[in-house]
Amino acid sequence: MPSPRHADLLQALRAVLGDEAVREPRADAPLTEHLQDWRGRYHGRALAVISPADTASVAAAVKLCRAHGVSIVPQGGNTSLVGGSVPDTSGQQIVLSLKRLNRVLAVDADNLSMTAQAGCTLADVQQAATRSGLLFPLSLASEGSCTLGGVLATNAGGTQVLRYGTARELCLGLEVVTAQGEIWSLLKGLRKDNTGYDLRHLLIGSEGTLGIITAASLKLYPAPKGCATALVPCADPAAAVALLREARQALDAGLTACELMAPLPLSLVHTHLPDVVKALGGLPLPTTRTLCGDSPWWLLLEAVSPRSDADAQECLASVLMQASGAESQTADGGHAARLVESAQAGAETGAGAPQASSASLSQSLSQRAAMWRLREAIPMAEKIAGRMVKHDIGLPTSRIPDFIAQVEAALRQRWPGSAVVCFGHLGDGNLHFNVQPPVELAHGDAFEALELAANTLVFDAVQALGGTISAEHGIGELRKHELAARHPEAALAAMRAIKQALDPEGVLNPGRVLHQAGQEAP
Amino acid sequence: MPSPRHADLLQALRAVLGDEAVREPRADAPLTEHLQDWRGRYHGRALAVISPADTASVAAAVKLCRAHGVSIVPQGGNTSLVGGSVPDTSGQQIVLSLKRLNRVLAVDADNLSMTAQAGCTLADVQQAATRSGLLFPLSLASEGSCTLGGVLATNAGGTQVLRYGTARELCLGLEVVTAQGEIWSLLKGLRKDNTGYDLRHLLIGSEGTLGIITAASLKLYPAPKGCATALVPCADPAAAVALLREARQALDAGLTACELMAPLPLSLVHTHLPDVVKALGGLPLPTTRTLCGDSPWWLLLEAVSPRSDADAQECLASVLMQASGAESQTADGGHAARLVESAQAGAETGAGAPQASSASLSQSLSQRAAMWRLREAIPMAEKIAGRMVKHDIGLPTSRIPDFIAQVEAALRQRWPGSAVVCFGHLGDGNLHFNVQPPVELAHGDAFEALELAANTLVFDAVQALGGTISAEHGIGELRKHELAARHPEAALAAMRAIKQALDPEGVLNPGRVLHQAGQEAP
Repeated sequence: MPSPRHADLLQALRAVLGDEAVREPRADAPLTEHLQDWRGRYHGRALAVISPADTASVAAAVKLCRAHGVSIVPQGGNTSLVGGSVPDTSGQQIVLSLKRLNRVLAVDADNLSMTAQAGCTLADVQQAATRSGLLFPLSLASEGSCTLGGVLATNAGGTQVLRYGTARELCLGLEVVTAQGEIWSLLKGLRKDNTGYDLRHLLIGSEGTLGIITAASLKLYPAPKGCATALVPCADPAAAVALLREARQALDAGLTACELMAPLPLSLVHTHLPDVVKALGGLPLPTTRTLCGDSPWWLLLEAVSPRSDADAQECLASVLMQASGAESQTADGGHAARLVESAQAGAETGAGAPQASSASLSQSLSQRAAMWRLREAIPMAEKIAGRMVKHDIGLPTSRIPDFIAQVEAALRQRWPGSAVVCFGHLGDGNLHFNVQPPVELAHGDAFEALELAANTLVFDAVQALGGTISAEHGIGELRKHELAARHPEAALAAMRAIKQALDPEGVLNPGRVLHQAGQEAP
Repeated sequence: MPSPRHADLLQALRAVLGDEAVREPRADAPLTEHLQDWRGRYHGRALAVISPADTASVAAAVKLCRAHGVSIVPQGGNTSLVGGSVPDTSGQQIVLSLKRLNRVLAVDADNLSMTAQAGCTLADVQQAATRSGLLFPLSLASEGSCTLGGVLATNAGGTQVLRYGTARELCLGLEVVTAQGEIWSLLKGLRKDNTGYDLRHLLIGSEGTLGIITAASLKLYPAPKGCATALVPCADPAAAVALLREARQALDAGLTACELMAPLPLSLVHTHLPDVVKALGGLPLPTTRTLCGDSPWWLLLEAVSPRSDADAQECLASVLMQASGAESQTADGGHAARLVESAQAGAETGAGAPQASSASLSQSLSQRAAMWRLREAIPMAEKIAGRMVKHDIGLPTSRIPDFIAQVEAALRQRWPGSAVVCFGHLGDGNLHFNVQPPVELAHGDAFEALELAANTLVFDAVQALGGTISAEHGIGELRKHELAARHPEAALAAMRAIKQALDPEGVLNPGRVLHQAGQEAP
């Protein structure tokens, strides 16, 4: 039974939002999808899940919650990987779902912009752009369920950041409900606007703690006319970095993705999801490999062209030819096909150089899709393989080879039998660097202890090399102790002052990102 | 004579920074270059101009000023166009020049990043990138004297924003001295870093009111191998917008600039700087034109290529051919030359369509330079022509044709004999929309009255069409009343709360951007 104060609040919310928009968890309708995170790591409780239908209703709900001293957890698709979008275990918070604010409001082709409400899924937004012959390039594994408000509140990344940037770079303006229940709307769709402090960028990445994003104005791009994908073996991460540099110089903004895959994650896909590897057909790909073998690392490169698929293939082929040391051929349309022929012959170059002569270049949409499925199957293969200690770290790209070498060695020394599942967005300096424990430490308290120690080992190395402990997943609940311990104190003080200034009563997602005032450390 | 408190402060600053780093204005050394703005509109006074040699000294100076209750105006190259970098007239502020923090600290080619101190000129930064075979694309008229700290504190724009974004988009991290004299350093050079609130973006564009930027980590790009420029006549702004759309689709990120020039600014250049027009040689350019004539508007388009000049010319030529309705030719290297031949024949297309068949496409570096000089000569020609009411406005690109038509008509109706000097960055939706008064209102009180009324007329129209009153110049002193009057109140309240949270004592550039607490409106 809610307390009298809480019962009052629920009644007031029902009066304003309508009965159907205020749901209390019950035995027959536990609302688990709103109270538990996607990974099943955090299990919260809540007074109610509310679903306002428009911005004015969001503002009214915030005012009521504030007046009753009840805090709010804003929620989009609830796909956070750091526990940022579920309530705490007190049962005294309100989950505010933005899902009913799901309209695309406008597409402006001459301004290359779109305005959409926060509850649209990322896929909705992509499709609205496509229907206008344009591109909204943000692309994530969870795009069918994550929402626009969520990707902006967490500054999501994904696979196209190399060319187009993170969610932050794709946002031109916001409409926001403040912690006081006021609305500011700056949805102008402008590329340049120097009128005071950039509240948009302060809200983006603030994970629902400084305001509730209710709508956004977004950058669109002309849809590329052509695309090509390649899988390229590299002797080691240093060779991958060298190939990335060549590809950037040769393709400039035509290079849209550069994904690194270590031998182990590919071996996991081969073992646990063999159909994914079979779909690649005769391409020269890893079969059964282990971390200790001498098998190469692989890069997935993607190029787009404003002209045609053939042009994109041509451009990507010339990068691979150049990298493999083969003589450059003049452009004549047969180039790409010949490259793959020569690739399948499989001549190997010296150690350290990219082994681009055994690369595979896509000849069709289905080959491109099969190459991406290989990359995207890795998290599922990991899940089947067992529990891992996950890290979403970022480093200057130039430091990545040293980081991988140092930290893999340190982990193996500390825990013989452990291994690293390393893959990610090399072009953005962002690695998913997940530690597979030795079998005897894979469960229970032993795993928990290893997780804590492995986090410390990995994050110490990240810090020493000038990196970040969270490149794209954010802080939420999972990393807030690490943030407090590792970020510069003057920057943390500024963040706390901003939270206090904009939400002095702690109405919005309190205790996420930053500790609540008076609850500094565990 | 300074008061005893001020004398104390100056003595303490000399003890910490050294005598030569603390200069008081004197009759024989009035330090005018630090106290007066570049346009000569604001004439300030100051206790002293101080020039710390490093970040620690900046922090120490801030602590001393704060302890003595003296406020600071941070200053780079002092090229602000809105009076943001000069002291007020009280004579009780300290100007803190960053000019001695002028070292480029590191270039990381594999990470495509650079770290540099705030006092480097923009040209220094560009040159350091060039020496490494890379590109720092921010480019402004004042690049020889404006500083990195200044372009970041004001989020400067310039001519390459269409492709590369404003200063904000080119910054990966900052080192900042806070209003408390603390230092936070987040110079990691990362593309992705989701660790808490984005203080970087809050500081960028805050015009020295929230912290003093002392160093920055910047994005670099591979230097393009080729470049081509075209001057293209368009019947009207709507035709220019249509051509921009075609160019974006055809060139994607290869399109780096799209500058619009109305007939009047070109006529001013022709009249007052005839050598600039002569340097264009035989190209089909405007001769003597007036606003009332039927002469076309002109677009300057620029394309880059990762391959060669010839490729850039080819790409740009194909856009112009397509736009002119001429039959598309296959790529064969003679294309560009033939286009210009056909261009010089000067066939005109129907009204409303881009008149690209009489376009000029650069055949050499000197032709490219001559085309850019035409665009860049406009402000100087304006200055010679007499006083103008200047506006730096932004609109969705799609709204620009309506805006120009409506507001020109309204201005002519209100002030017969007035004219508009309209030019700017069409690709970014940013116009310099300057009003030339009728002769009888060009001076004294009559000009001042017209200026106030013209501002209101222009800004009302901007607001009605969803635009901004300051696209790239910022707010500073010049536009703070307009910001207070026209921005959403909830957003202004958030800005004031942030200023109060980060600088409660008003140490940093008080009264700029936002009114000082208790001094709301004039």
